[in-house]
Amino acid sequence: MTVHNFNAGPSMLPPSVIAEATRAVQEFEHSGMSILEISHRSPGFMAVLDEAETLVRALLKLPEEYAVLFLTGGASTQFFMAPLNLLPQNEKAAYVDTGSWSTKAIKEARRYGHIDVLASSKAQNYAHIPKGYNLPVDTTYLHLTSNNTIFGTQYQVWPETDVPLVCDMSSDIFSRPVPANRFDLIYAGAQKNLGPAGVTLVIVRKSALGKTGRDIPTMLDYNTHISKHSSFNTPPVFPIYVSLLTLRWILETGGLHAMQQRNEEKATLLYEEIDANPFFRGVVSDPADRSKMNVTFVMADRYRELEADFLAACREANCVGIKGHRSAGGFRASIYNAMPLEGVQALVEVMRSFSLRYG
Amino acid sequence: MTVHNFNAGPSMLPPSVIAEATRAVQEFEHSGMSILEISHRSPGFMAVLDEAETLVRALLKLPEEYAVLFLTGGASTQFFMAPLNLLPQNEKAAYVDTGSWSTKAIKEARRYGHIDVLASSKAQNYAHIPKGYNLPVDTTYLHLTSNNTIFGTQYQVWPETDVPLVCDMSSDIFSRPVPANRFDLIYAGAQKNLGPAGVTLVIVRKSALGKTGRDIPTMLDYNTHISKHSSFNTPPVFPIYVSLLTLRWILETGGLHAMQQRNEEKATLLYEEIDANPFFRGVVSDPADRSKMNVTFVMADRYRELEADFLAACREANCVGIKGHRSAGGFRASIYNAMPLEGVQALVEVMRSFSLRYG
Repeated sequence: MTVHNFNAGPSMLPPSVIAEATRAVQEFEHSGMSILEISHRSPGFMAVLDEAETLVRALLKLPEEYAVLFLTGGASTQFFMAPLNLLPQNEKAAYVDTGSWSTKAIKEARRYGHIDVLASSKAQNYAHIPKGYNLPVDTTYLHLTSNNTIFGTQYQVWPETDVPLVCDMSSDIFSRPVPANRFDLIYAGAQKNLGPAGVTLVIVRKSALGKTGRDIPTMLDYNTHISKHSSFNTPPVFPIYVSLLTLRWILETGGLHAMQQRNEEKATLLYEEIDANPFFRGVVSDPADRSKMNVTFVMADRYRELEADFLAACREANCVGIKGHRSAGGFRASIYNAMPLEGVQALVEVMRSFSLRYG
Repeated sequence: MTVHNFNAGPSMLPPSVIAEATRAVQEFEHSGMSILEISHRSPGFMAVLDEAETLVRALLKLPEEYAVLFLTGGASTQFFMAPLNLLPQNEKAAYVDTGSWSTKAIKEARRYGHIDVLASSKAQNYAHIPKGYNLPVDTTYLHLTSNNTIFGTQYQVWPETDVPLVCDMSSDIFSRPVPANRFDLIYAGAQKNLGPAGVTLVIVRKSALGKTGRDIPTMLDYNTHISKHSSFNTPPVFPIYVSLLTLRWILETGGLHAMQQRNEEKATLLYEEIDANPFFRGVVSDPADRSKMNVTFVMADRYRELEADFLAACREANCVGIKGHRSAGGFRASIYNAMPLEGVQALVEVMRSFSLRYG
């Protein structure tokens, strides 16, 4: 059975990654042991960690001054670790509120300094990315959520500023090139474009650390993990291993420019159908802010009562994960790196058949 | 190739668990998707989480007043989460220092109240469990490390006191029955007796929470995870799933009394050989404190130069992970629940052959 997996995360991984991960759970590199049973201090796993870091550096073209960490706790833990490590209590940081995850990041950050919420699209149910706000120059960092999984918006242009950026890239890391040197910190839960749930990628400019004067619990201090190469305590071995397999796949299939090209092709196909098909309408109010990762749409107003029928049609065609998040309603198709064009074509075909059947 | 995996953690898992985990990475329950690709909100995974909690409750005979959580960050994160959530700033907690992990727990706890270190066996390189100390009655909790992975000691008798216990059981959880109602908090990294690296089991008495008056970051507050059933954010799906498989295996093979019996049989076999074989000597000074999980031993003084030869003999017999931790030296055989008697017999055979060859 071919399933077209449009889950928002955890989400589909490349079939070759799943095949290799399966083999490693059975036996890791002729060791007579499963990847689940090897020591995190073994040469085999240290090589995994080294290669994963090397590939992150290569894909994002990271300068030497950045550390690459594989932690746990998800982006939700970074919501407070970021200001705890970067923001002195008497200084200020700026946040843009583009959805549920930004809101949570803002809430956690307020403990650690003055937080300016420069702009919010909350009143429009986050249907666009705010622009045109003023950013004070005496701001330690500007925090962004690059892609809003729930509402389907994404920064297609980074704000113009000299203030260092801090960014939650959980749902679009490695989907396109990014100007790494504009960021003091990038963090991303793995479970969309990188791997399974259970590991969080953190990329931090080392010179931005050590300035808060705070007494930070050892496990919450980025410097702990930098000095111990993500192995201060036992790291999540298998999630890191699968992330390495995905990083290899990204590199082998062309790197971030190729990912971007494929992602744009997939998103264009789907958005064109949404715009052309009278049964549907896109959720994002400014087409320039449409996400290439999470395509949100609803039934057109006059067909609203057909929502359950459309979901049933998707299920029949083995398109799973199409129901939108309760905060946004309607439908959401998550089309991360691993989703092939054929999957999007299958969904578009369901939409076309649906409009023929009910039209 | 049969490998006898004596790794201290991550460590061996039951072969049936590895087989089932392999199948689930390939495809989870005829879903057409890998366990790595399903949503953490899917009925399939919610059933995994429910069953895992139910089995933890059943195995430990937990009263209703305890919450069972599956978190991340390892025991190292619990070192500060425990006092952060349990210890008001003006109150005191007691700790017994039985090794590296206790020492780290003490260091992290000092931020959150007055910490009394009642006793320490550091001067004896942690070769025994301190006893006979006085525990003040006005102590919020007494913190113990039930089993000391590095030094090979283990509480065989719990201290007699009415003070609630807080315990790091990372390396012996589910290896024997425990009197659950004596504990306000039990925590354990999964990667020894429960599952792969990447998930931490936390068992907490709900009435012990909410008394510190602290403003706790959302992700560090046990109440967050209690109210969201370990799914406030994306939990580590696969490590939890493999933990469930292990919990099922424990139950199917007889539960905690059966585990205890098998573990004692294995440990007795190995300690008897250590005591009888003139080439070796046990590290733990009080035999009553010997761990049933991590058996530490060294070459007898007059054979010290044969250490590398013995390690080579172990390797030849496919006994891996025998080298001791650098803090304790010599050898360590970790014989967790999943290690069959045959594995210990294989190691004992290596020890006997070694003494015949060099004797």
